[in-house]
Amino acid sequence: MAADIAEQPAGYARLLEPANRDAIAAVAAEIARRRPRHVVFTARGTSDHAALYGAYLTEIRLGLPAGLASPSAVTLFGARPDLSGALVVGVSQSGGSADLTEVLRVARETGALTLAVTNDPASPLARAAELSVDIAAGHERAVAATKTYTAELLALLMLVEGIRAGDGGLPAPERAALDALPELAERTLADPTATELAARYRFAARLVTTGRGYAYPTARETALKLMETSYLPALAFSGADLLHGPLAMTDPDVPVLAVLGAGPGGESMREVLERLGERRADVVAIGPADAAGASARLPVPEVDERYAPLLDILPLQRLALALALARGEDPDTPRGLKKVTVTR
Amino acid sequence: MAADIAEQPAGYARLLEPANRDAIAAVAAEIARRRPRHVVFTARGTSDHAALYGAYLTEIRLGLPAGLASPSAVTLFGARPDLSGALVVGVSQSGGSADLTEVLRVARETGALTLAVTNDPASPLARAAELSVDIAAGHERAVAATKTYTAELLALLMLVEGIRAGDGGLPAPERAALDALPELAERTLADPTATELAARYRFAARLVTTGRGYAYPTARETALKLMETSYLPALAFSGADLLHGPLAMTDPDVPVLAVLGAGPGGESMREVLERLGERRADVVAIGPADAAGASARLPVPEVDERYAPLLDILPLQRLALALALARGEDPDTPRGLKKVTVTR
Repeated sequence: MAADIAEQPAGYARLLEPANRDAIAAVAAEIARRRPRHVVFTARGTSDHAALYGAYLTEIRLGLPAGLASPSAVTLFGARPDLSGALVVGVSQSGGSADLTEVLRVARETGALTLAVTNDPASPLARAAELSVDIAAGHERAVAATKTYTAELLALLMLVEGIRAGDGGLPAPERAALDALPELAERTLADPTATELAARYRFAARLVTTGRGYAYPTARETALKLMETSYLPALAFSGADLLHGPLAMTDPDVPVLAVLGAGPGGESMREVLERLGERRADVVAIGPADAAGASARLPVPEVDERYAPLLDILPLQRLALALALARGEDPDTPRGLKKVTVTR
Repeated sequence: MAADIAEQPAGYARLLEPANRDAIAAVAAEIARRRPRHVVFTARGTSDHAALYGAYLTEIRLGLPAGLASPSAVTLFGARPDLSGALVVGVSQSGGSADLTEVLRVARETGALTLAVTNDPASPLARAAELSVDIAAGHERAVAATKTYTAELLALLMLVEGIRAGDGGLPAPERAALDALPELAERTLADPTATELAARYRFAARLVTTGRGYAYPTARETALKLMETSYLPALAFSGADLLHGPLAMTDPDVPVLAVLGAGPGGESMREVLERLGERRADVVAIGPADAAGASARLPVPEVDERYAPLLDILPLQRLALALALARGEDPDTPRGLKKVTVTR
């Protein structure tokens, strides 16, 4: 898992190389040409969080309605939604999930433009889809997905920006921002705070993670990583939903990991932090700036909130790994987990 | 909270009375006439779980793609998705959420057909929408929503079946099934098992809830109710997602509440139960039949899985209430919660 985590800056660089960039640009140009009216994502587990990021990007950057579909409506209850005019995107590390493949097959039959985003372009999911993007993350050794998650994020970002540009290519400022990511990721991973912070949670009974907008997928993925590797119950809430009820669960004994970008999402978390402060919650801020009332911070370089998910998750993956080790767990052979999960 | 819970059978009967039924049928007929191409739900907290039920109904019963949209893309990041051809449904008990109202306002501007489903037809959300459905649940006294949740479920069910029928009216078999619900709800609430079972979880440190398809919203809502009233960390997973990682967290110390309908959703949970059994998890089955390996059952009458969410949640609400009392909490004045949560 440590090796997979460390490879992420190189993974970003690889995906940004001309061959991979051009392949994604070609797919983006074809999607732009077909002008989908709305976008439906389908995914499970870690990839579901990448899909959620893709949905935010789609709505904000493309002005297209986007949603996440549950495969079970199709695979269990036989739903045959009319998806003509839709782009249906299956996101899966392995591309081996039978249920996602079935959803894409049915979507293609009902007239949707279908796209698979996977780490295996020869997988059943990629073969079922009309279009396919290879996230080119290389073999992932650990069961807990890390480098395939961030490669999915970057592939979706490149895809959406390519669709936005129309011809699949990236405008110069966008390209400059993306080209800076490998080095920023390297710098983020070089910071030792995440590993130091793990000691703090050695005896925590549970954790809460929170964020809004682009940062919400990071909060969700962090919670899943903590659950998969440390078996800690970790509850992820959008900042807004936290105020709707689960706030009552937070108290000084429940650490809160708050993902705070430099932008509207981070701004909107201020009220959440105030309310957490009233409850004397122990808050660690993940972000580029100190947050009032937070007891610690996981520093990440300041970037547009749109790019922040590609950096914010890095120290949080390291925190999950270090915490698992501190608790005497083996994150490379987690209990009861397989790399490819077959669900129908 | 006990009084609100007890009123649910009467709430079903009220919504099925001619005046309310006709009002919903008129809205359904208008939606059918306008032929939306896809449906976007937006909601928060408990109402988000009703919206999720609405999304399953939409995909399975109407064959229309449905998804849940995050308000923050619109309210924080200024997204202006082109929602022409879409039906956008805001679900909110109070109808007072500023962010949902803003989403419906923007959706209406961009050409969507908009619908508010609320307990207050004079609320900002209802006024912002072109169409409005009154769930007619009466004043809810407790902060934790119970009777407004189930009224939202029934209103969405009546609406979807009315759209399916085309003219808004319900076909005779559907109407018979719905007319049976008040008495079935009464019978479900008369069963004392839920209250007895609360003692079992007095000292639980956390809980897992799970279900698939139509039962998944019930699992989510149960987890929220437990968190709001007992401050117990309760993690809800679709049965499929549970197999993708969080299964590792379950062990004999973590009680699992598994919602098992009589149909494809319940069927597909068999593998989940087997895997939970391998981990020697303590499973309580919520459903009409005994489940192999479960240590207890919360009995509910057998109905089509489509109607089951209107019954399954009832003993689970009572369990949440009884557990809060057993743990010395006051579910009527939960910590740090307000009835109307204002988020942007």
